Amino acid sequence: MKLAIFNNQLFGVVKGDTITDVSDIVNWNSESPFESLVYVMENFDAYKKDLELADNKEKTYNLADVTLQAPVPSTGKIWAAPVNYQKHQEEMNKQFNNAPRTIEELKLFLKSPSSLSGPEEPIRLPLKGRRTDHEAELGFVVGKKARNVKASEAKDYIFGYFALLDISIRGNEERTWRKSFDTFTPIGPWMVTADEIEDPNNLDLKLWVNDEIRQDGSTKHLIYDCYKCFEAATQNMTLYPGDIIATGTPEGVGPIQDGDNVRIQVENVGEFTVPVTAGDAIEEE
Amino acid sequence: MKLAIFNNQLFGVVKGDTITDVSDIVNWNSESPFESLVYVMENFDAYKKDLELADNKEKTYNLADVTLQAPVPSTGKIWAAPVNYQKHQEEMNKQFNNAPRTIEELKLFLKSPSSLSGPEEPIRLPLKGRRTDHEAELGFVVGKKARNVKASEAKDYIFGYFALLDISIRGNEERTWRKSFDTFTPIGPWMVTADEIEDPNNLDLKLWVNDEIRQDGSTKHLIYDCYKCFEAATQNMTLYPGDIIATGTPEGVGPIQDGDNVRIQVENVGEFTVPVTAGDAIEEE
Repeated sequence: MKLAIFNNQLFGVVKGDTITDVSDIVNWNSESPFESLVYVMENFDAYKKDLELADNKEKTYNLADVTLQAPVPSTGKIWAAPVNYQKHQEEMNKQFNNAPRTIEELKLFLKSPSSLSGPEEPIRLPLKGRRTDHEAELGFVVGKKARNVKASEAKDYIFGYFALLDISIRGNEERTWRKSFDTFTPIGPWMVTADEIEDPNNLDLKLWVNDEIRQDGSTKHLIYDCYKCFEAATQNMTLYPGDIIATGTPEGVGPIQDGDNVRIQVENVGEFTVPVTAGDAIEEE
Repeated sequence: MKLAIFNNQLFGVVKGDTITDVSDIVNWNSESPFESLVYVMENFDAYKKDLELADNKEKTYNLADVTLQAPVPSTGKIWAAPVNYQKHQEEMNKQFNNAPRTIEELKLFLKSPSSLSGPEEPIRLPLKGRRTDHEAELGFVVGKKARNVKASEAKDYIFGYFALLDISIRGNEERTWRKSFDTFTPIGPWMVTADEIEDPNNLDLKLWVNDEIRQDGSTKHLIYDCYKCFEAATQNMTLYPGDIIATGTPEGVGPIQDGDNVRIQVENVGEFTVPVTAGDAIEEE
């Protein structure tokens, strides 16, 4: 099922080119959408059939006529995987002349929860003259509390998948700081519940800047696959419902500029396009 | 004023060796203590006099008879300063043989919000056989939303100060991962409101392991002082009420072991002692 948040924090089910407002069915509170989503995730089995059958014509809209928001409206934390595709690892180590580093050595890094944004919000470049890159990724949301969960059990804890952009400035700062500016984690266009993703570790992943394809990979090339990323984020660290994991980006990473449009597409999940603006970029000291 | 959270998420004012439950005065809801604290911070001027005068004897307890909890009960994010004292920078670069790195180059890193713990909770060592270090710091909580705030204006946004332990395993992983295990950010024993801290950049800071003094510094030696840390965390990144900033640790950092007791003391703020346990440490793969 495709679950979306739209317009003024309403909760919807997407079918084809339409979206049906199902807020009433799950007692959704638009003033506390995070808590509402956690409630839906924790009680999904009870609501699933009603959500699938929802067809109230008065509450069904063309997708083109609504504004999609981030399918996870806010989050407790975002764990992300660095250099998690071999060819991306090579391009990074070549361009930035670092000693070779691997995900096995580095494990995961945090992105700021306040970097989260929606599939129709612009990416705002933060620092004038600083190279800022696109990174296309598969992301997912944690459905229930987890601690010391092995990769083999991780599937039970993942609620839904979405496309995710891990926007990054380049430089010598801590990776976590370079990737935490506001609007640096657009997600969307909706989430696809885990029961409909047969194998998250075998999905094509593409990114275009304007009409030029820049990244064309597949999650089958992940070094730490989705489940292993989950394991690495739970080693004596607690994950809570609503936490997000970003699984890493394939090769083809490169800069974005004021005025660009960035399109990301994940197989069986969906696609979205966000504009890039430098309108509130600030000078570095 | 010293504001504390105690027993089962009650809200208290500390005077001398006593604590008065003032939950009723501020409509505190123990089931949503984070939201309650944000409400108190946003309306503090209106409540300040009533809180100062609170002396309900039936609701006043000896501090020794209550359990103090983290004075910020949960948090949206924790920004922390790496190598922010010159002598600590030198000891780290000497011990771990890295290329010299500075806070000016690195900026800040995130710790997991779920690493937060209270001043009477044990530090749980996460990985068997892995060196785990104490780092004594001054921490503070953000009182209102902030973005692109200069150091010169930062004072207006800081609500209260507390002692903070930035516990860290050593190794080659991302700094943010090494410092994000559960119980790796004990804070307490209470918060002292900013109006009572004349100069946060001139406070003595001490740490003992068992009865041996290990760290003996002062925030006057901070490279990025409290306000500059705040500035670095707001450059086109939004801080929200309840976010925490950890300002960095002075020299003397070293390992802690199962059975140790770690005591931190910050001048004009307070002190607390937490035990260390390896009871649920796991083997690394």
